Amino acid sequence: MAKDKKKKPARARAVLPRGFRDVYGEDVRQRWNTLSAIRSVFDMHGFDPLETPAIEYVEALGKFLPDVDRPMGGVFGFQDEDEKWLALRYDLTAPLARMVAGSYDALAKPFRRYQTGPVYRNERPGPGRFREFIQFDADSVGTAEMAADAELCMMLAEALEAVGMARGDYIVRVNNRKILNGVLESIGIAPGEAGEEQRLGVLRAIDKLDRLGSQGVRALLGDGRKDASGDFTKGAGLSTDQVDKVLAFVDAGGQSPTATCDRLLDLVGTSEIGVEGVSELREIAQLTEAAGFGADRILIDPSVVRGLGYYTGPVFEAELTFPVTNEKGETVVFGSVAGGGRYDGLVKRFIGRDVPATGVSIGVDRLLTGIAARQSQESQLNDGPVVVVVMDREELPRYQAMAEELRASGVRAEMYVGGSGMRAQLKYADKRQAPVVVIEGEDERGQGVLTLKDLKLGSILAKTIESREDWAKGQPAQITVPRDRLVDEVKALLDRHRPDQNAE
Amino acid sequence: MAKDKKKKPARARAVLPRGFRDVYGEDVRQRWNTLSAIRSVFDMHGFDPLETPAIEYVEALGKFLPDVDRPMGGVFGFQDEDEKWLALRYDLTAPLARMVAGSYDALAKPFRRYQTGPVYRNERPGPGRFREFIQFDADSVGTAEMAADAELCMMLAEALEAVGMARGDYIVRVNNRKILNGVLESIGIAPGEAGEEQRLGVLRAIDKLDRLGSQGVRALLGDGRKDASGDFTKGAGLSTDQVDKVLAFVDAGGQSPTATCDRLLDLVGTSEIGVEGVSELREIAQLTEAAGFGADRILIDPSVVRGLGYYTGPVFEAELTFPVTNEKGETVVFGSVAGGGRYDGLVKRFIGRDVPATGVSIGVDRLLTGIAARQSQESQLNDGPVVVVVMDREELPRYQAMAEELRASGVRAEMYVGGSGMRAQLKYADKRQAPVVVIEGEDERGQGVLTLKDLKLGSILAKTIESREDWAKGQPAQITVPRDRLVDEVKALLDRHRPDQNAE
Repeated sequence: MAKDKKKKPARARAVLPRGFRDVYGEDVRQRWNTLSAIRSVFDMHGFDPLETPAIEYVEALGKFLPDVDRPMGGVFGFQDEDEKWLALRYDLTAPLARMVAGSYDALAKPFRRYQTGPVYRNERPGPGRFREFIQFDADSVGTAEMAADAELCMMLAEALEAVGMARGDYIVRVNNRKILNGVLESIGIAPGEAGEEQRLGVLRAIDKLDRLGSQGVRALLGDGRKDASGDFTKGAGLSTDQVDKVLAFVDAGGQSPTATCDRLLDLVGTSEIGVEGVSELREIAQLTEAAGFGADRILIDPSVVRGLGYYTGPVFEAELTFPVTNEKGETVVFGSVAGGGRYDGLVKRFIGRDVPATGVSIGVDRLLTGIAARQSQESQLNDGPVVVVVMDREELPRYQAMAEELRASGVRAEMYVGGSGMRAQLKYADKRQAPVVVIEGEDERGQGVLTLKDLKLGSILAKTIESREDWAKGQPAQITVPRDRLVDEVKALLDRHRPDQNAE
Repeated sequence: MAKDKKKKPARARAVLPRGFRDVYGEDVRQRWNTLSAIRSVFDMHGFDPLETPAIEYVEALGKFLPDVDRPMGGVFGFQDEDEKWLALRYDLTAPLARMVAGSYDALAKPFRRYQTGPVYRNERPGPGRFREFIQFDADSVGTAEMAADAELCMMLAEALEAVGMARGDYIVRVNNRKILNGVLESIGIAPGEAGEEQRLGVLRAIDKLDRLGSQGVRALLGDGRKDASGDFTKGAGLSTDQVDKVLAFVDAGGQSPTATCDRLLDLVGTSEIGVEGVSELREIAQLTEAAGFGADRILIDPSVVRGLGYYTGPVFEAELTFPVTNEKGETVVFGSVAGGGRYDGLVKRFIGRDVPATGVSIGVDRLLTGIAARQSQESQLNDGPVVVVVMDREELPRYQAMAEELRASGVRAEMYVGGSGMRAQLKYADKRQAPVVVIEGEDERGQGVLTLKDLKLGSILAKTIESREDWAKGQPAQITVPRDRLVDEVKALLDRHRPDQNAE
């Protein structure tokens, strides 16, 4: 890059691959504040942070098998110098499993860690679907106690409040997979591998309750369903009696935890696994209630099933419940921002035996969208820095000192470091959304004063005053202050735009 | 992962590829605190944060050319579905260039952004050399003003203080490439491409001043140098007179900025580029001095050359100056943790013309090593959480409430969520470095009291008291307190171990 080449190369294209994006300015700060708020909650609960590299052996990530010639589907893979296949992590659970298995005996158990960072999916991107996105996970490894699951539910609720969600804006729903398995056993669908396919069909059907409603799910549990376009989806093949029983399970919520659990106990009948599931769910309900988390925050909800095979016991899901407008212009509930549950197969691939574990994963990008939706009514709080204009290049140290003084008193400020004139500098300040501009020309310097331009007030006035000339004469958005009052006067200007001040 | 396979697969190995590592617990917190402290400084100066994806088109990253069959050397590369080559970023400057070029006209200029994140090098790892490591960059794009360079030097100094370095523990050195070019011109080494190779030889020689001393550099500037092992390195081929002049340049520092600049002006003679360089350096010195940054923080130092071709004007380097012991047991200065300078070729590959820019890059992992070295004398400040022991599983809500109370008053605390007995729980608390353990057995519950074990005091006493039996009888590290005094008494125990309390 140092020297000019004789041959002029073709210009490179300044673009990102599809499914990737830059994040800039206030959006980055919002992201960091959100991550930091979640971290504080998890820290307070005694969880410790882990950071693992983005690159792992494909073998350690599991699930995907490398071809010899090309990277495997779903992950970004590549070969190391020794021909071993590496890949970018596709979630934070697989690296946790590798880490736990690699130092299993040395770890204090239960091992409770949280981790946040980008994960990568080599999939077709779409609107709002990126190939790099951020997750925030917390897991307890090495304990079968329901107290660990209850703790994660409470942490989710606390984390959502820490990032600014009011009580009532969110709900953490809890269910237990064993109960559904028990219900299915009680209606004659075999446990274990025999009934596996039918069980998956039932899970898939219930998972669509939000979208299709109870009638749609009924069809999918039975013979199948024809959608508006005429496409037919094969059903799980349950009889009407069986369907009624499954729907009764799905509908068993909405009451006090005790009443819901009693109803579920009826539904599972004598199924051992079902009874166990209800007892686990009851224990979580008791623990969260005892800790002061009422049903307005953590709710027993049998309609939560969370995806397919993976989970073995409690499952949880955190939802933002306030209304938003979707792409079709319909008013809908914002929806899920986090989920998780209990799983036992975590380190089995490495050490050959099941280790009980439970975890949650927050979809940070989705949560940020939710936070933005919630805040969209509020006015723009985040300004750019105060800009000190450079009127006279020989006096740079004077301008620099002004910026330093402002910063020393906690005001974000910069001296303009470009080489352009006054007009361009004001335009720059405007583009930066600077609330205030500090000006010291020769005249001001002679008199020991400064001119402060209130750009925010200026832009409000510009919208309301008809003739720009009138405005220029009056200059209500511009004041002259003694040089030694710089900090106080700038702070006064900033204060008059603070929302709480306006509210008075 | 949901169901057991009939065929038992071979166990996966729980290892990371070479050159990668996990970071856990306090090390992660120290990393975050450091990043956050640097961020605050850059924010206050009006810089805005940018985050770009880890994956870019190889074409946009530049410098590397993909083979058709295998990833290119130095970077981790792989093909996208459309056969285009992607790669993991190897620094944060290339993505900045791509971003700036992609939205050049829309940006407020100077465009001042900071960015931190991992970068990837597909190189042979070594001790302390990783293939994934963290950088923290700040750049001003679109300004040729020395004020921008001066600002970066001041920001570096402030950032190092913000992460805990005392004044005197660090120094930011500044130089200007144009001066060396001027010196070389004045001794007859042609400017431009003609003298390029000799100029690079001189840069390489000066860069080794730290390691080889003035005699070694003299040899490398002249005919060449034979090292202790007998290996011979060819020299830059300068005459004795020329070597003297270059060494006079390197030695020109150590005086007041004005005196140093005057001496440099003598050395560059009539070289236009040299005179320009001295004037630029003088301007930076004036600006930083005027802002209150003395030579104890920002120092004009002609021996700083910063690597090879790349830079076109000012160059800077931040060093930690306190002594540490190296691998050979020698006492050495800790050394460089950040560097940067002015470069013009940034977006040329994309938009076809030079855009002036200047930037710094902090090596965060190296800085963290420096911070750890500086803190190693201090006592261990970071404890694990307070652990509430579960004596009686039926009473989980009681124990949970205790942990909640502690957290609500700002004490990091957890209830043990494993299934093990008392003994294992105390061992767990010990492994977690819990300062205090809270115990409520049946007896305590009956009397409305709790037992608090001060594990920190316990471990101190265990080292000093001879007979463990005597100790067990006395139990000085264990107190009984009323249930409703939980928070106050735990806080009192924590307080007595705070370093400032002990110092009184």
